[in-house]
Amino acid sequence: MSARCFIGTEPVAAIPGQDRGFAYGDGLFETMRAHRGALPWWEAHWARLVRGAARLRMTLPEPAQVIAESAALLAGGDGVLKLIVSRGHGGRGYAPPAGARPTWVLSRHPQPSVAATAVKLRWCQTRLALQPALAGIKHCNRLEQVLARAEWDGAPASERDADEGLMRSTEGDVVCATSANLFVLREGRWRTPEIDRCGVAGVCRQWLLDTIEVEETVLAVDDVEAADAVFVCNAVRGILPVGRLGARVWPPHEHVAALQRRLAEAHPGFAISSTEQP
Amino acid sequence: MSARCFIGTEPVAAIPGQDRGFAYGDGLFETMRAHRGALPWWEAHWARLVRGAARLRMTLPEPAQVIAESAALLAGGDGVLKLIVSRGHGGRGYAPPAGARPTWVLSRHPQPSVAATAVKLRWCQTRLALQPALAGIKHCNRLEQVLARAEWDGAPASERDADEGLMRSTEGDVVCATSANLFVLREGRWRTPEIDRCGVAGVCRQWLLDTIEVEETVLAVDDVEAADAVFVCNAVRGILPVGRLGARVWPPHEHVAALQRRLAEAHPGFAISSTEQP
Repeated sequence: MSARCFIGTEPVAAIPGQDRGFAYGDGLFETMRAHRGALPWWEAHWARLVRGAARLRMTLPEPAQVIAESAALLAGGDGVLKLIVSRGHGGRGYAPPAGARPTWVLSRHPQPSVAATAVKLRWCQTRLALQPALAGIKHCNRLEQVLARAEWDGAPASERDADEGLMRSTEGDVVCATSANLFVLREGRWRTPEIDRCGVAGVCRQWLLDTIEVEETVLAVDDVEAADAVFVCNAVRGILPVGRLGARVWPPHEHVAALQRRLAEAHPGFAISSTEQP
Repeated sequence: MSARCFIGTEPVAAIPGQDRGFAYGDGLFETMRAHRGALPWWEAHWARLVRGAARLRMTLPEPAQVIAESAALLAGGDGVLKLIVSRGHGGRGYAPPAGARPTWVLSRHPQPSVAATAVKLRWCQTRLALQPALAGIKHCNRLEQVLARAEWDGAPASERDADEGLMRSTEGDVVCATSANLFVLREGRWRTPEIDRCGVAGVCRQWLLDTIEVEETVLAVDDVEAADAVFVCNAVRGILPVGRLGARVWPPHEHVAALQRRLAEAHPGFAISSTEQP
């Protein structure tokens, strides 16, 4: 993993101890699939950052510089590029300082291995609080996801058989996986949870909303368990068919495989190699 | 302001770009009033950090080293000492890394000026989400407070006449100020909001719970506006009598002044000078 840090337009060696990202999680991030040195979904990621920055009233770095530094870091290769942007340096206290220059960190990570089989899910005990002011944007207040993800790392080995966890809101409706959005199929109709009270408006989720007919709605636990097919998705791993959720098992479903093929046509990072072909 | 950064026991110049505090707000903090180089409420602050670390399942630095570095930074002086502790360095992804060494930052700040008159409050529009898993502890996911505090910084000058803002939960009950707890007096009885679903278990709040008879309860907006006296409190500024909340005005109240005197006897940092004497 290699990383570069900046304050405003200036490269820096590391992050100052008084950065508001470190103090309050006062920032935004994007995690992007890179393909041959490029970021095919850059525009969607940047658009979400712009929406987040408007919500938090913070300044973003110059996109041209982010693009140039990303290209340098990727050096024509594949992988995952993560961008974190904080509001920048601030004194003590919550009041956002006027005119702060954003602190931003670009890091390159290995491409995750694609599971040869469908993913296994578990239910998380940690719930997502309802906060419309922060819902949808990809901000850096992520302790709920950290706690949820820790549930099955800390579990006894016999219970650790999960790739991802599904999270419910504090009201009990199903929202998302810890780092992916959720889609369920029933009687030929796709549905995905609304993310207006909690959850993240995923870039792959948005590609699906733009590509197929999907109803954004409230999903109960029963709606998931009774589904004919389920997948989770994000901008790094694409569409991941779900094969199991607790005791519920789903066989491969042609509708999910068809969506994977459409995604592979739309984004070269998700091209299906012959070994991965379902 | 001077600051020192550490990873585990090692001093470092700044925070690595991959620190989980910066990435996710995955940490805890304390803000402490220092008096003549000492931290009179150190034990209560440390106890809260220990509770927070147990909740987040993260490692704290060695307290003896924190105390020694604090003393060096304070050099016998007064002021405010802030300690931020993050889970430490981590790769990409929410799963907490096993065996991470905590990153911690100590910084010294000037003592805040004590308002000569009672403080003015406003109602914040930003609500606090209900999240029992994080309620009470002083974690670093503070975007709600940042958004709330920004409400009156960004307001027109004519509306900017507030020292602090009161926050309600998403269900409408009154919880706290953006950086202080709330106490209300009615018919001789003190009450303060419960902090089991959101809010922070303040160190000064706990001193009050241990010192006087206070009911922890659910407070409605009407309960605050109908109170005979109101104050907010924290471990940096002590007890701050509230003189105004929107159109509601309170004259000074002997019960609040009496509590200020008790606090001044209990904690030398809050000693009342002759010029501040109510």
